[in-house]
Order: sequence, then C-alpha cells, then structure tokens
Amino acid sequence: MDFKLDYITRLLWQTRDKRIENYVIGRIWHTLNDWDVKMKGQQYVKRPNGKYALTDIYFPQIGLHVEVNEPAHYSSAERIHADDIRRAEIEANTSHTVMSIDCTGKMGMIHAQVDNVVDYVRQEVARQRAEGRFNPWNPEFENSPEFYQQKGYLDAAENVQLSRIEDICKLFNARFVKRGFQRPGAADHPTDTTMTLWWPAVKRQGWENHLADGHVIERHIDAGKMAAHVNNVLGTTRTRRLVFFRHRDELGYSFYRFKGVYELDRDSTSTVNGVVWKKRMDRYSLVN
Amino acid sequence: MDFKLDYITRLLWQTRDKRIENYVIGRIWHTLNDWDVKMKGQQYVKRPNGKYALTDIYFPQIGLHVEVNEPAHYSSAERIHADDIRRAEIEANTSHTVMSIDCTGKMGMIHAQVDNVVDYVRQEVARQRAEGRFNPWNPEFENSPEFYQQKGYLDAAENVQLSRIEDICKLFNARFVKRGFQRPGAADHPTDTTMTLWWPAVKRQGWENHLADGHVIERHIDAGKMAAHVNNVLGTTRTRRLVFFRHRDELGYSFYRFKGVYELDRDSTSTVNGVVWKKRMDRYSLVN
Repeated sequence: MDFKLDYITRLLWQTRDKRIENYVIGRIWHTLNDWDVKMKGQQYVKRPNGKYALTDIYFPQIGLHVEVNEPAHYSSAERIHADDIRRAEIEANTSHTVMSIDCTGKMGMIHAQVDNVVDYVRQEVARQRAEGRFNPWNPEFENSPEFYQQKGYLDAAENVQLSRIEDICKLFNARFVKRGFQRPGAADHPTDTTMTLWWPAVKRQGWENHLADGHVIERHIDAGKMAAHVNNVLGTTRTRRLVFFRHRDELGYSFYRFKGVYELDRDSTSTVNGVVWKKRMDRYSLVN
Repeated sequence: MDFKLDYITRLLWQTRDKRIENYVIGRIWHTLNDWDVKMKGQQYVKRPNGKYALTDIYFPQIGLHVEVNEPAHYSSAERIHADDIRRAEIEANTSHTVMSIDCTGKMGMIHAQVDNVVDYVRQEVARQRAEGRFNPWNPEFENSPEFYQQKGYLDAAENVQLSRIEDICKLFNARFVKRGFQRPGAADHPTDTTMTLWWPAVKRQGWENHLADGHVIERHIDAGKMAAHVNNVLGTTRTRRLVFFRHRDELGYSFYRFKGVYELDRDSTSTVNGVVWKKRMDRYSLVN
C-alpha cells in the first residue's frame, strides 16, 4: 500500500474509539487536502519540572499542536484553567503554537474550528514555500540512509531512525551478512576496526537487551551462551558500538532509533552481569 | 450531542476496523461537506431470486449506492465479473445508480474517485434543488409524529419508524399512562375502542414477542401471568393492534418500526400458545 495512505489510516485507526476526536482528525486531514503536509498523532512534549504532555495532533513542519477537547475538558473551571496552563507551558517550552478545538458545541461549531486550524496550516505552509524553506513530507526520503548521508551526522538527541537493518548497513556501506536463515544482530563497521553496528531489540531469540540512561546491558537467557558471548566480546578489538535500538511506534511501525556511540565497560562486564556498554557520545560524524 | 454529528460518527465507527473503507467514507463526507445530504451505511438491497446485497454507502435522497472495494475485490477475473453482475442486478432491481471505488491504487487514485462520487452527488442534489424537489436531510423531522401526520397514513411496506414510545402516543393523540415506575407496553387508541397501540420488543420484563411473517405471538415466561393475560385479552373489545416493533439498527439507535394492523386470532390463542395476532393490513389511514 501507498505509504502515506497506510500512515494516515493508521493514525485515524488509533483514535477509532474516540468518535469525535477521530472525526475531527479526519476532517482536518481531508479539508487540508495537502499531502505534502505531515500530520502526527499523540506528540510527546516536555513541560517544566520533568512533566510532559501528549498533544492530539502535531504538524512537525510548522510546529503546530492541535488539542481536540471532548466535552469532559470543559467540565469545570479548574479543568479549563489547568488546560490553559498546560498550553502556555507547551508554547513556552517548545516555541510551538497550540490550538484547541472545543467539541462541546454543535457540528457547525466544530467544523468552523477545523476550518480555522486548516487556514492556519495553509498560511504557514504558504509562507514557508514563499521563503523557499518548506520541506514537503517525503516519508520515503526521511529516515533513509541517503537522508542521513546528506545530513552528514547522526545525533541521538535528534530522533534519528531507520526502518530496516538493511538501511543501517547501507548508511555505513557495511556488509549485511546473513547466517543461514537467521538475520544477523550486528555488522562490522567497514573501515573502523574498533566499531560494530548493532541493532538490539528488548528481546529476540534468547537475547535480552536492557537500555537505560547511559548504558545498554546485553544478556542471554542461556548461561552457557552468555558466558561464551562475554568472553568473545572481551577478546575482540571491536569494543565500540553504534547502537540502533529497535522500537515499535504508536502506529505499529517498527524502526531502529540511533542511541549514540557506546563503549565496552570492561569493569562491569562479567559472565554473570552480561556485557555492559556505556554511552560515550550522542553524535557520530558520517563525514570522513 | 448534535444528532447529525452523533449519526455520522457512529456511521464511521462502524467501519473502524476496515481502515481504507473508513478513510474513503470519511473523505466522501468531509469533501461533500453538505449536511443536507444524508449518507447511510450498509444498505440492504434486494436482488433477483431472493438474493440480496449490502452496499457500503447509500445516498437515499438521490438513489446512489457506493461500493468501496478493498484490494481483495480485484483478486480474480471471476470476482470482478461477479461484482459487475451484482452491480447490474442492483441497478435493474432498484433503478438506483451504483458507483464503485477501487482501493487497489495509490492514494491519489482513491482521492480522484472520491472526487468523482462527490461531483455526482453535488450534481444530482443541484438538479433536485433546481427542480424544487430536494428534501434536505432533516432527522429531527423525519420519523417524527408530525412527519407522519402530514403524510396522512402509515404503511408497513414503507419503512415507517418512530424513535420513542412518546412519539407513538403523540401521533395518535393517545394518553401515555405510566404504571408507577414502569413504562407501559401499550396504550389505548383514543377514539377507536377496538384498537390498541402496541410497541413490543423481542424480550422485555418476562414478555417474549415473536414476530414472523403475518403474525406476532405474545407470551410470558411465567405460565400464571401468561394465562391471566390471555384471558384478559380474550375478554376485551380491543381486539386489534397497531404494532410498532422495537428494533436496534446497525448504528446502535433503537426505534419502533410500524408492522401493520393486527387482529386477535381467537382460534390459535390459548393459555399454552400465548396470544396470537394476525396481520390484517399493511396500511393505516391517519385521516379521519
């Protein structure tokens, strides 16, 4: 299926049980009717004091969040006030714009608010286009090896992700070596003999990889296999890893997110603990 | 909630797990953007030889059916041929128009076909408006007592339905008498002393009502209560009933559909069988 069609129908499917929100999101998409504009659902936004918020819709190209507020949002003055504070915090913390759609009214009222959001999006997109700085939504190029090669670096702070293991290998010009029918769990960096490209999942074929702030712990449920692997890793020159951790997003797409450059922590690594990798850098240059 | 908003969001909710169909139906509604036009889902259509079909969308005001065909519809030449025959049969049997949307293509192809359907609907509606025969979608008036009073009759063949018991009573100017906290199951016709207005459900508070071609059988699970009721009915002058059978439609709305004028069948009625009512007429005049 067409990627954009697959994507937008998954996004709508996410809100299938919130009839009004689902209706409003569909209406924004169909009324806007511009497939160069990307629309995301459930955007995570940091707020002060370690809090965060999820906004209902986000237009990443123009930095617009849309909140679709079902009637419960307006049940009390406290709730309305809390929503106002939340909106102000998001705007202050991100320099994004937040618009709300109040769904307590009649259909015509909701439609008018959708038109308002759509007008704003069109205006901003037109402005960016006029200024020659609009990047059309191009999912086949975004997060492709070519995209990052042009960019020249990977940065774990910038939400870097690739869809397939083949793309990770292609990005570094590394050989994708199959072991029989099994997909490999890693590949050698083709020029840096200290470096391995690694794409761990939380669990896969007996391996368990625990990602926490600043390190990854690599273990196997079979003690014998784990011991053999630990000794193998301690004996090799490839003591650094470019980590692409496997995730599945809220739309059901799986991908590999760049987590930085990790180095073998010899002191913490043991046949009991497993292999411990410590983060050394967020950023990795792709330019030689 | 606004009835039309409630209605259309229920209609979309029905296809929530068919992502493409759901997308196409939403797109038709939002692109058309004319709330005077009613859109129905899953329309039952008779075909020759006792067969029937369910079409995905139906515009009752202009007699247009739309089939939203997911890729499986185009899996074989036989399937395509069968769909063509089905479409021809529906058109021949109903004098309606059937349009199909082929969802195998890219998003742009699907959008173009939606535009095509929307253009057709707009054209037909504009024609009817110009000829002064367009009836705007008016759910508050449709199926209201006032609507049928203006029409002057009820006909079981014409899909007559009322939303509430109060509306049935209002239509006949009958008194809606509550028995304590219980809702009544029937009301006396105010002028015809042989007639009762009756709104049976399949099951309610021990009563079981079986509706089959040409008759309704009324029973109670408690043998004592049934015997008392049978004797009561056999002794009264009110031996005819205007039957409004309770249904729930595919969108989850409950309503009372007019089934005709029924008469007590004294021969078949017994304390063992329950009360048997036989249909005498489909049509009932509301004009004195």
